[in-house]
Amino acid sequence: MSDYEVFEAGDVVLQNDITLRNAKLVYKTHGTLNAEGTNAVIYPTRYGGTHVDNEFLIGEGMALDPAKYFIVVPNMFGNGVSSSPSNTPAPFNGPKFPRVTIYDNIMVQHRLATEVLGVKRFALSVGWSMGAEQAYQWACLFPDIVERLAPLAGAARCAKHNFVFLEGVKAALTGDVEFENGWYEKQPLAGLRSMGRVWAGWALSQAWYRKEMYKSLGYSSLDDFLIAYWDGIYLQRDPNDLLAMMDTWQQADISANDTFMGDFEQALGAITARTFVMPGQTDMYFPPEDGEYEAQHIPNAEFRPIPSLWGHYAGGGKDPTGADTKFIDDSLRELLSA
Amino acid sequence: MSDYEVFEAGDVVLQNDITLRNAKLVYKTHGTLNAEGTNAVIYPTRYGGTHVDNEFLIGEGMALDPAKYFIVVPNMFGNGVSSSPSNTPAPFNGPKFPRVTIYDNIMVQHRLATEVLGVKRFALSVGWSMGAEQAYQWACLFPDIVERLAPLAGAARCAKHNFVFLEGVKAALTGDVEFENGWYEKQPLAGLRSMGRVWAGWALSQAWYRKEMYKSLGYSSLDDFLIAYWDGIYLQRDPNDLLAMMDTWQQADISANDTFMGDFEQALGAITARTFVMPGQTDMYFPPEDGEYEAQHIPNAEFRPIPSLWGHYAGGGKDPTGADTKFIDDSLRELLSA
Repeated sequence: MSDYEVFEAGDVVLQNDITLRNAKLVYKTHGTLNAEGTNAVIYPTRYGGTHVDNEFLIGEGMALDPAKYFIVVPNMFGNGVSSSPSNTPAPFNGPKFPRVTIYDNIMVQHRLATEVLGVKRFALSVGWSMGAEQAYQWACLFPDIVERLAPLAGAARCAKHNFVFLEGVKAALTGDVEFENGWYEKQPLAGLRSMGRVWAGWALSQAWYRKEMYKSLGYSSLDDFLIAYWDGIYLQRDPNDLLAMMDTWQQADISANDTFMGDFEQALGAITARTFVMPGQTDMYFPPEDGEYEAQHIPNAEFRPIPSLWGHYAGGGKDPTGADTKFIDDSLRELLSA
Repeated sequence: MSDYEVFEAGDVVLQNDITLRNAKLVYKTHGTLNAEGTNAVIYPTRYGGTHVDNEFLIGEGMALDPAKYFIVVPNMFGNGVSSSPSNTPAPFNGPKFPRVTIYDNIMVQHRLATEVLGVKRFALSVGWSMGAEQAYQWACLFPDIVERLAPLAGAARCAKHNFVFLEGVKAALTGDVEFENGWYEKQPLAGLRSMGRVWAGWALSQAWYRKEMYKSLGYSSLDDFLIAYWDGIYLQRDPNDLLAMMDTWQQADISANDTFMGDFEQALGAITARTFVMPGQTDMYFPPEDGEYEAQHIPNAEFRPIPSLWGHYAGGGKDPTGADTKFIDDSLRELLSA
């Protein structure tokens, strides 16, 4: 018995007018939906993560308690579990996997929730990083369904600087000659390592490195951290999957659809959910300034940054003190009780 | 007639005990040394720059006025003008060019200043970015010579996060198979482009990109800026020179020498110069927090960050409004009159 289920979504026409055939959305649920279908939580996955990586925020006695809530964790397309370059048959395999947007993800998740699972209302839409992008998209497209919103360390669109940061990551990966324009037959290991090295400076704050906080994760030195963690983090990952997710990220904009026609402030204004906007205080690629702007344009929002030196990783479940997890858990409990 | 002069420094034993043979330090001077030898300014070059790139802060009516001061601009080793991987004969050419530290640079600059030029005192030691690292090194090694200090958008050592950022840049460049471990016969163009893409996110602030300030530089869009500026910026540069300078940068620490034996605070404490510590307010790799710490440990220092959204580029002479240049020029005038 696997720990997840598969929604066979059939042929999905994407925003770019390519059809994703036999689309598979892999998901996991925690808890039981009540008879009214109103105790659900939607909690999409992050870049490079799967449903398993979300579980640190779910548990007995936590805000996201399966005894109280029916928590739905859909895997983002491109993550190697749901339909992705690495698991899609030719001719849409590898670099020919079509562009899938945040909007495309949410439209399929909506079908899963309403047609398959019988959800009537989401008590909360929550996610971390790219999961936050999806949580935002849910709230503005389906304000009648989403009662509360908590985007963690993410944003409602990919800021230009964020886009540029990802350009550097992509260049490092695709610059490996063994990447072969995506038609590699073996892993382009040098590129995957370079990608990790580039990402290393972005993920954690200047203060985090200054205080040598990698030691709190068990690494003996900076070099040890760079090699053991960053050089290795992507070695087993499929490069085209990584690039497909990055493309989804770079295109992210909750207003980039026929509903809002690119009017970002209108899309934010359409969110009726009670909202806690929760960027990481020291996040360099989803900086709190963007979250502050978003909170100002959401009618019922509070700006509540996560106090942490863990840069983008704040709220990602990695700080061994658990301070960020506790801050979020407390906030979600407060939000859910409102 | 060339616009610079060459100090033939002979055989220089470096900190790592390799001898840099027939070392050439190329420099330019502006103005005339007075009879007492006390109106001199030392103004070393930045990463990837030459004496020409320093000239925007020098001029009639400016703080650094050649009518008043004798301004010495030494080219940092590795920059392709002074001794560098690209201009050193075998067997120390290319990737075999020895590690040259900030300390090594300053010891040769000191010989130039005192033995060749006859300088008795520097009214000011100033530099931007890696130039600031050198300016700091001057002030702590030679407090009797350096009367004032103004490190701009730099630091007295390479912070760990800064080191990591450079690791990403290096990975992007050296990941190109045509780099050939430094023994390339033609330019590794893909790697040089990737290096620019990685650097793009680091050099300028999130707010700078948010406000589309590349348009103030004449670029028509973000893509236009990335291709026209960043993809092109390093294409003509020698990769081993770029790496040699990065290594100098990564090793930078004013206390990493026999004088201070790694005691960073002692090295800062040895600075007697009246000092304005001037990091860029939004610099991501030389963040103002590091400058604030340094200012606290220098007896006669004031922390005076450059108010600018230009990230690391604040103070680099690129902002077409000239606001940062004016702020620095005013500050240098104030400092020099003290």
